[in-house]
Amino acid sequence: MHERDLIDLIQAKTVRKHNQLLQGIGDDCGIFTSLPGTDWLITTDMLVEDVHFNTKWHSPFLLGRKSLAVNLSDIAAMAGSPKFVLLSLVIPKRYDNSWLTAYIEGFTSLLDEYNCVLIGGDTVSGERLTFSITVLGTAIHNTAVCRTGASPGDSVYVAGHLGSAAAGLYVCKEQNYTISDTEGSKWPELIRCHLDPIPQVRLGQQLNKTGFITAMQDISDGVATDLSHICQKSGVAGVLWGDQIPGHPELYELCRQNNLEPLDFQLRGGEDYLLLFTVRRGCEKDLEKCIADSCNTALFRIGTIEEGRGVVLQTGPGERISIAYQGYEHTT
Amino acid sequence: MHERDLIDLIQAKTVRKHNQLLQGIGDDCGIFTSLPGTDWLITTDMLVEDVHFNTKWHSPFLLGRKSLAVNLSDIAAMAGSPKFVLLSLVIPKRYDNSWLTAYIEGFTSLLDEYNCVLIGGDTVSGERLTFSITVLGTAIHNTAVCRTGASPGDSVYVAGHLGSAAAGLYVCKEQNYTISDTEGSKWPELIRCHLDPIPQVRLGQQLNKTGFITAMQDISDGVATDLSHICQKSGVAGVLWGDQIPGHPELYELCRQNNLEPLDFQLRGGEDYLLLFTVRRGCEKDLEKCIADSCNTALFRIGTIEEGRGVVLQTGPGERISIAYQGYEHTT
Repeated sequence: MHERDLIDLIQAKTVRKHNQLLQGIGDDCGIFTSLPGTDWLITTDMLVEDVHFNTKWHSPFLLGRKSLAVNLSDIAAMAGSPKFVLLSLVIPKRYDNSWLTAYIEGFTSLLDEYNCVLIGGDTVSGERLTFSITVLGTAIHNTAVCRTGASPGDSVYVAGHLGSAAAGLYVCKEQNYTISDTEGSKWPELIRCHLDPIPQVRLGQQLNKTGFITAMQDISDGVATDLSHICQKSGVAGVLWGDQIPGHPELYELCRQNNLEPLDFQLRGGEDYLLLFTVRRGCEKDLEKCIADSCNTALFRIGTIEEGRGVVLQTGPGERISIAYQGYEHTT
Repeated sequence: MHERDLIDLIQAKTVRKHNQLLQGIGDDCGIFTSLPGTDWLITTDMLVEDVHFNTKWHSPFLLGRKSLAVNLSDIAAMAGSPKFVLLSLVIPKRYDNSWLTAYIEGFTSLLDEYNCVLIGGDTVSGERLTFSITVLGTAIHNTAVCRTGASPGDSVYVAGHLGSAAAGLYVCKEQNYTISDTEGSKWPELIRCHLDPIPQVRLGQQLNKTGFITAMQDISDGVATDLSHICQKSGVAGVLWGDQIPGHPELYELCRQNNLEPLDFQLRGGEDYLLLFTVRRGCEKDLEKCIADSCNTALFRIGTIEEGRGVVLQTGPGERISIAYQGYEHTT
């Protein structure tokens, strides 16, 4: 597809109006204006074929969704509202018009679900399929939730089952799942979590509204690493309770059948794109009630914040394993 | 270089303070706030090795500068002030620490020259060196200069010699220029224009302040194509005067020695990153005086805007050649 045709396709598939947008695609820059009392959040991710995704099992429609979802998840992790998006692509010739059209349809389906507007980008011919996506969101001035606010005594929560996306990737890789298997897969939820993650944008905003959360980020590299980021930025230590780590029934069944350890997926598995956050001591019940009233999302209390540094997994009374930043390693 | 080391290097080399920046590198998103009465401009470009640049002749320091310069030029083309930058890289293993360090030094040298702050990005290991850069700038509300305002009777100007960058690329390719030739090159200005273009940020702002310009963009694909964009967006026709197209003495000498046609470089040669703009009829002298007083930049009046569509090169009395969007083709 020629660059001009691709841009025409994108323009045909995307909404181009927004009350803060003064100039969309079609000039040297996009132009947008602010509402008083708001801040802008910006995030960017680059996804490279065979490093971040594999088109053998990732359909173009779902890849379009996921390549945007991972960026929306970063906005969610600060409790922002996504608004404007830039999409740059390196496209090898082997991806034909129908593939690109399905990719753009997937991408725009998620744009529409979150009321976002595509305002710019770039396209290049090249050898390796690559997406570089930037999302701008807003938050009320000085209310975005950073990683820096966790304090000793806070509780650690995650908003869903851990390890599903990594287990889905395992199924795709090891069990030769391909696009055409969609209907027949034995592990629909694991596959869905890997191929079509849902950014928790509304939940992030609702959590922030409660006033009880102290730090937040999304699970992109696995809870062991992602909680380490919060702890490092907040100058505290994290404890995860080994018997409280939530997992989907499909994860346990997959592990049973293949002699695998569920905790490997749950602690170190990336790409769940669930919100990981800390809650002020004593506010846990109130927070859970607020969210039960406003969102239909399961929250799991999985640990606590302490004085110190690092992240440990508590595996029994007095037994702790250091898991900071990656796999676990026995230290006590 | 590990991703963590590269981020540390970038943080060590970059300024991280700005009065509108609330959160720089190091959380899920960058956060910035607006000043009242301003709009945001945003632009993004993706540069891929062997498509957009060749590291045989492009030193890492100058490539760092150019990869940012092409985006700053888009901000200049709307008369904006660049502020915040995102840098995403795909880095093959063969580019070692010293190469990356020089790239980052070049990149940050230009960041500093334009008082910009790097607020985010991404790094990925991969096979093809790729840069995806996004720049945010500001302009006073509703004053950014678009491509849509040209009217019949306006004059067409360009702010420098055309074709130098394309001729510099020719020298690099055809005369086997390599990084180590820096001192000995016979064509220092052509090489400089290709390797280290200067985004005309201050000039864009000064031009806008005069109140005389009606449309503007930067020369990225050659004046024939770039004026076509202005004409198409403004619903008018463009005429370029063949005997008024400015060229550097090195261009003419290179063409003489190699039996080449200067106009090929001047009309179709991309990457000059000079401002191309239209000036309201009758305001030419005032504009030239304003710019002579405020900037030290040569402006060249190269044509005019008419009713109609397309872009032609006027080669003599009554003789016109259509050159819209690309090479020229005889039509009358």
